Amino acid sequence: MSGDESGPGTARSRHTGRRPGNADTRTAILDAARARFAGAGFDKTSIRAVAADAEVDPALVHHYFGTKQQLFAAAVEFPVDPELFLRAIDAAPLDQLGVALVRGAVTVWDSPAGPGVVATVRRMLAGEPNLVRSFLLQVVLERVRTRIATDEDDGRWRVSLVATQMMGILIARKVLELEPLASMPLPAVVAAVGPTVQRYLTGDIDQSVD
Amino acid sequence: MSGDESGPGTARSRHTGRRPGNADTRTAILDAARARFAGAGFDKTSIRAVAADAEVDPALVHHYFGTKQQLFAAAVEFPVDPELFLRAIDAAPLDQLGVALVRGAVTVWDSPAGPGVVATVRRMLAGEPNLVRSFLLQVVLERVRTRIATDEDDGRWRVSLVATQMMGILIARKVLELEPLASMPLPAVVAAVGPTVQRYLTGDIDQSVD
Repeated sequence: MSGDESGPGTARSRHTGRRPGNADTRTAILDAARARFAGAGFDKTSIRAVAADAEVDPALVHHYFGTKQQLFAAAVEFPVDPELFLRAIDAAPLDQLGVALVRGAVTVWDSPAGPGVVATVRRMLAGEPNLVRSFLLQVVLERVRTRIATDEDDGRWRVSLVATQMMGILIARKVLELEPLASMPLPAVVAAVGPTVQRYLTGDIDQSVD
Repeated sequence: MSGDESGPGTARSRHTGRRPGNADTRTAILDAARARFAGAGFDKTSIRAVAADAEVDPALVHHYFGTKQQLFAAAVEFPVDPELFLRAIDAAPLDQLGVALVRGAVTVWDSPAGPGVVATVRRMLAGEPNLVRSFLLQVVLERVRTRIATDEDDGRWRVSLVATQMMGILIARKVLELEPLASMPLPAVVAAVGPTVQRYLTGDIDQSVD
């Protein structure tokens, strides 16, 4: 390895576990983050703990990677910032949330970033389901849950049902490439699956069916 | 490595092409079946072709493994005979098919055979999605499709939607172990998800929702 690829103004001298180059420091932070997120989950991992594991200052972690959520995305090599997707969810009216979730997610999966997302999810499913669970429960679904929670219903069962349907679309459309689903245009997928997700979010899900 | 761990009565003489022992013949048949099913899919794989690849008589394949479907199950190390599940599907009235599918599948996944099913699906998703696709489309979903097909609608889009929901439950409940879904008793899962699957099978799925 060439030990120093630092550009002008980016050289940093480190000691004890010396990491002279940016690339090495970044790698150390990402390794530490991946281990923490996999072991403790998203919520219980702090930037401070990751920084300590990587033997760097917490400010440097923020400087390189931004928020904890962005650090997570970088650690699992997620090719898009989940925040962009989540803002669209925040903006959708409650009675359109199902459609917004399906449209938003499938749009990302069908985009040029899609293969990277799919590869990340497949890799995590095969080797680190903890990371998928943590990301889903504590980042994505939590953000949706706060939209639907009421005094009588905290929404946890509802968002886990949403997760089944969204995860299933991802697997069937992008991993298995099941036809005709894999080639079905976005509006048809949204029309078919949006009502399912909306019912899970705000509809009657406890009624016995037989 | 110690080259010979054969116990009494298991010694086998091996040479080019000859397969004198049951275990070796079975292994050769399963290897050939796995390669054929992965390459050509379930429909286009014949017992005759598998037998030819394994250099045995087709009757021997039937003798060891039964039907093509049972050979498939053995080749992917599926721990239950899918036929048992599929017969329950055949027996359900059309307006109860959604509930029957969810109840039947989740019952198998929650059973002692469940971990084996989950391990098989995870392995195939990671390495051989062709095998999952082929099994789903040509065995399970085809059997469901013939129940719902009409002159106007061949049911292919409908059963691919069913596949998304069922696959998603499997992944979220048994691989990710997302709570509260993972601990939710079977009747609650059936009550929540049965109507989704029933709508995909026989309901209105083309109506635009916005």
